[in-house]
Formats: sequence, C-alpha cells, structure tokens
Amino acid sequence: MKKGILFASLVGILFTLGSADSAKRPNISPLPDKPPEPKDNPSTPVKVELGKLLYFDPRLSGDGSTSCATCHDPNQGWAKKRFMSPAYPENKHFRHSPTVLNAAYNTLMFWDGRAKSLEEQAKGPIKSPFEMNLNYDLLEERLKKIPKYRELFSRAFPGEKNPVNIENVVKAIAAFERTIVCNDSPFDLYMKGDKKAMDEVQVKGMELFVGKAGCVQCHNGPNFTDNKFHVTGVPKNRVEDETLVRVTRNFVLREHGFKDPDKIDRDLGRYFITKDERDKGSFKTPTLRNVSLTPPYMHNGVFKSLREVVEFYNQGGGNVPNKDPLLKPLNLSEEEKEALVAFLEALTCNTVPQVEEPELPNYEGETAKGGG
Amino acid sequence: MKKGILFASLVGILFTLGSADSAKRPNISPLPDKPPEPKDNPSTPVKVELGKLLYFDPRLSGDGSTSCATCHDPNQGWAKKRFMSPAYPENKHFRHSPTVLNAAYNTLMFWDGRAKSLEEQAKGPIKSPFEMNLNYDLLEERLKKIPKYRELFSRAFPGEKNPVNIENVVKAIAAFERTIVCNDSPFDLYMKGDKKAMDEVQVKGMELFVGKAGCVQCHNGPNFTDNKFHVTGVPKNRVEDETLVRVTRNFVLREHGFKDPDKIDRDLGRYFITKDERDKGSFKTPTLRNVSLTPPYMHNGVFKSLREVVEFYNQGGGNVPNKDPLLKPLNLSEEEKEALVAFLEALTCNTVPQVEEPELPNYEGETAKGGG
Repeated sequence: MKKGILFASLVGILFTLGSADSAKRPNISPLPDKPPEPKDNPSTPVKVELGKLLYFDPRLSGDGSTSCATCHDPNQGWAKKRFMSPAYPENKHFRHSPTVLNAAYNTLMFWDGRAKSLEEQAKGPIKSPFEMNLNYDLLEERLKKIPKYRELFSRAFPGEKNPVNIENVVKAIAAFERTIVCNDSPFDLYMKGDKKAMDEVQVKGMELFVGKAGCVQCHNGPNFTDNKFHVTGVPKNRVEDETLVRVTRNFVLREHGFKDPDKIDRDLGRYFITKDERDKGSFKTPTLRNVSLTPPYMHNGVFKSLREVVEFYNQGGGNVPNKDPLLKPLNLSEEEKEALVAFLEALTCNTVPQVEEPELPNYEGETAKGGG
Repeated sequence: MKKGILFASLVGILFTLGSADSAKRPNISPLPDKPPEPKDNPSTPVKVELGKLLYFDPRLSGDGSTSCATCHDPNQGWAKKRFMSPAYPENKHFRHSPTVLNAAYNTLMFWDGRAKSLEEQAKGPIKSPFEMNLNYDLLEERLKKIPKYRELFSRAFPGEKNPVNIENVVKAIAAFERTIVCNDSPFDLYMKGDKKAMDEVQVKGMELFVGKAGCVQCHNGPNFTDNKFHVTGVPKNRVEDETLVRVTRNFVLREHGFKDPDKIDRDLGRYFITKDERDKGSFKTPTLRNVSLTPPYMHNGVFKSLREVVEFYNQGGGNVPNKDPLLKPLNLSEEEKEALVAFLEALTCNTVPQVEEPELPNYEGETAKGGG
C-alpha cells in the first residue's frame, strides 16, 4: 500500500474530490457508536466501574503519586496541556500525552505505535520507571488488600480463581476507556444530515481538509487517523534538550538496545522500535477529534495552537531528508488557513465525557486511602 | 558444627570459663583496625568520596525520596529508631533497619543473610520496589548526566570505558561503608589493657555474657556475632499485622516463590530464602557493638530497650517448636540483668563516625539538585 494513503475499509461517507485521483478516497465520517472490543475482554458495567476506580487510583504507581488520570486528565481533554507529559517524580517525560478520548477507536497506541490495544497500552506506563514505576507483583499484593477491589475483581472476572492480577487490571482500565468516547461534534451532526451544524467557514475548511490541503491523506477514517506512521519533520522543542528529558529518552533508547543513546540528539519516534532508517522521525498520525481540547500539539508539544500546526503543513512540513513525499507547500491563503482551523474546531464533541474523580476504596483496616 | 556454637577462627583474646566445656570458646575481642575488603574492590580515597555522595543521594531512588541514609541514618546509630525500617512512599517495610556501623566486619548481610558482601547488599534496596524502587538502567542514565559523578567515577575506576554503572555504584557505596567503623568502646580499651575503661558492674556483665547468660554462644567474635542464624522465638510486633506491612512481606514471599503468602502470618526470616523447615523464624545474629545506639531491637523492633531483650533471653527466649536448644531460662537476678545491660552499653564506641550530609552535585545545566 502506498505510504500515507489509506483505502478506508470502514463504511463511511465518501467524498469525491474533483482533483483527487482514484487512490485518494477520503473516509471521514461519524464513528460507530460503540468502539470495537477484543473478544477476550467484553465490557460489562462492573468491569467499567472497576476500571474507572483503577484509572484514578495513584496506588497504581510506586510511590502513590501518579494515576492514569495524571497524564490523561479528564479536565484537560483526557490529555495534558503542557509540552511533555507529566512524569513520575524526579523524572521528566520526553513525549507529549496523547488523549484517551476516542483512543478506543485506534488500532495502534503510543506515539511510536508500540502497543496494539488499550490493554497492552495500559501495562506500559504502570511498569515504566519514569511514568508510574510500579512492580506488577507489588501492585497485585496492594490491590488484594483493598476489600472493595477484591469484590469488584471477583464480579468483573467471574469464575477466575485469582482475579486480582495485572492482566485483569489492564482489561478493566481498557473497558473503562472504551466508554470515554464521543461522536456528536458539529462535524458528526453535519454528516448525519444537520446541514446547519457547521457554518460556512467550517464547511469550507472541510473541503480544504479533504482537497487542497490534503490533510485527509493521513488524517483519514472516522477517527481522523490512518493509524500509520509518517515523517513530517516536526521541529525540536527546546525542552527536549533539558537534562532530565534526555535522561528518560536515553533510558528508553537503552531499553530498545541502543548502545550509545547520547549520540541520538532528537526523538526519532517509530525508528526507536523498528530501527528501520526510513522510520527515522516518524510518528503515528494522531486523531483530530476533539483536537481543540488538547493543545499543545505534536509528539513534543512544539506547536501551541492549531493555527501553528496549519502553518507548519502549509510550509510543507519540516526539513528532514526522509520526509513523507506527500508533504508539499500548500500555498493556503490566510482565509483558507482560518477555515481549516475552524473545521478542526468543529471536530470537538458537544458532549465530551465528563467523569469526576471517584472516591477510592480503602485498604483493609485503614480509614485513609494511603499507606506511607 | 553444632548449631549456635562457634569456634572462633580470628585471633583474639580467649576467655577461659570455669564452667565452659571445650566447645565453648568465646572470642570477643577488639576488631581489626580496618575491615576486610574484597580483592576486586580495593578502597581508595576518591572511591570513598564518591560512595559517600551516593550514600546520601536520594536520586538513587525512583522518585528522589529515599537514600541509603534514609534507613541507615548517621544520626540514629546508622540505623533507624522505629519498629520497621522506613520504606519507599506508599509502602511500609516489614523489618527493622540493621545498622551500617561496623557492618563491614560482617560476612552476611540482611536479617535473612541473603547477601554476602556490602556490595551485594547495596544492590538490593536500590531495586526493591518498596525500598528505593529504581531501575538500574535509569539510575545509570541519571548519574551520567551529573558532571561531578562522571568525573568521580572516572577517577575511582580508572581505565574503565563506561565507569558509571550499577556495579561501580555499589562498589563505591561499600568502600564508603568500610569507613563507617569504630573500635574504641570501653570494652575495646579494657581489652587492650586499660582496666579502668569499664567499671565493676560492666566487668561483671562481661563475665555473665560469656558465662552464666551464655550470650556469647551466638554473639561471638570481635563483632559480637557468629554471622549465623538462630531461632529464638522473638514475639510478633503488633505492627507486623498492619495491612501495608503485610503487603510488602507478601510481595517478598511471592518473589521467593511462595504461592499463597497470606497463609504465612509471621516473618519466618531465613526460611523465606532456604525453605528449610528448620529455618522457620531464624534470623542472623546481629552485632552488639554500639547496640545502645540502635533501639528498638530484633528483626521486628519488638523490644524497646536492652533490658527488655535481656528479660526475653532470661526467660529462655520465645515459645516456638523449633527454638534453638541453646536457649534455656537463665535465672538471672535483677542485679545480673543490670550488669548485662551495663556491659552491652560498654560496647558503644567513644568516637562513632560522624558524617554530615554532603552537598550533592547538580545535573548538567541545573542549579538545583532535583528534577521533577
């Protein structure tokens, strides 16, 4: 399959573009109401209830400081409004937090796509020494001493002899995350027939999105991502050179088998996983749904606004030798840029899932949640 | 070799006891001025300097909260005056901190003797998820970004291409710990000929120690330990039943292969390592040097004072089926108990090593030590 061009396999509303050849078949459309779920992890209300508690529980981190919600914050578009993701204390992260909102529709997780499911994704940060830094066995022993969790795991995973285990922890979290979806943006309403849901500028932006600007070449499919990787030449963010940011990136490089990580002076994304030269600096296409809620942008948060992102692509992306050939200067007018931003803003749901931090269950014989 | 009875191999001043048979050869004596050091880790001033910084550096823990000194505190007899050792945040430890003072003379480390050198010992807590909880690779990447450490590792381990590594971290810490020794207690001075160094009561206590009370059966050798394990039936400390204490003990049991740790309701010490029924509840004989500085006592800190310890042994120890047969009721008078305590207090050095917390070196380009 040609790089960067997706033949959408999902049923959707197809745009026919005057200028598009037959290879360009945009498939931007409303999402299915329910995201897919793996056969071995069917959602149930009790599993979702358990997953919600675990999602907010900082006892899933070594020192009780960090929960899933720390970096994927319900009050910040289920992401985090800062360059780099928060990190475990004494560390600095080297990548920006992707949103959990509608992540259930993605087929690859993390900026480098190293996980294929929400379940697999959730296992990573729990163990990562600079994210949540908790040994799985210690996690299990902790959770077993919280009566409410014992009860919920038994009910969520009936018939299992030892239901309190890491595999079920991440299954429950993934089941909860599959409820963090929305599909009622002005764009969705428009596509479902309410032609007043988007204004003229937004409609113009949509036409540019699938046409002249070519955004849809990568941001294709109902979740506005092709779930593939592209080299766009995103510039370095100055914070990437901070010492502690280098430390975590170097650590990750070592774990991936790079012997001299300090020689690699920028984040090369997918390449760290595949070690394929062509992947140097390639990152997963992120969803654009609700994108207005989750500044800053790109894997390193280098762009503060959608306007900056549009400017970047208008220039044809950055200046790297292996850049995706799809990227070329766009010659957009100011009006066109504004229209594109207006369309991107029309991808924000009217009803983003609002979840309040739940009251967490106590340890046996303890009145406060913590230990310490 | 008969359990609990040691034929001292070191040169020392031998007491000849009227009542002792030939198997009882007490060997309590001044310590050699310098503790032994492994062939592959000779001490040098720069290695000790580096080890001192590392000993006090909380960046050797995952979240920057905990250093070696947190649990082995120079201001608390190089141990900690609380039942259980401090733990990593959100955890509670299940054993009392042993002292680092004169640990350099021991041949086994930890209450369960699972390490054979100071080097091996130091590696344990750094990685332990409820002690310092730091991944070795992340530790190395951190230390490499601290210029002063790069310099000191290069000087302490000359000729090595990548001297900043976990093996050298623990070598340096061990070299520092080999300087945390003392040998000028009233007892030492007395044994070297200053007969006024101990008073009459203390001398009486020493006679009881090697004689009627039989303490020397286990607390033998210049460091007042046989470096062996004994079952004495120490009673449970109520804090051992606290939920978070159970969590860490259960975790350790799991790591040692016990499938159902909650079925084991007390700390069985050496048995956790050997799984030999005879070792159930056996713990390493601790040194008695400087013992007056390190209350509370026993692996679980259950006894608050030396007097309580003496009372415990006067009763013949605790009530467990596999108790060491050497333990029998002693029928000590009140005066004799006081004399024993007075002798134990005479084991406190006049000049305990005083070390002030050093100023820690900064990360590259950072003015404060921390990251966060």
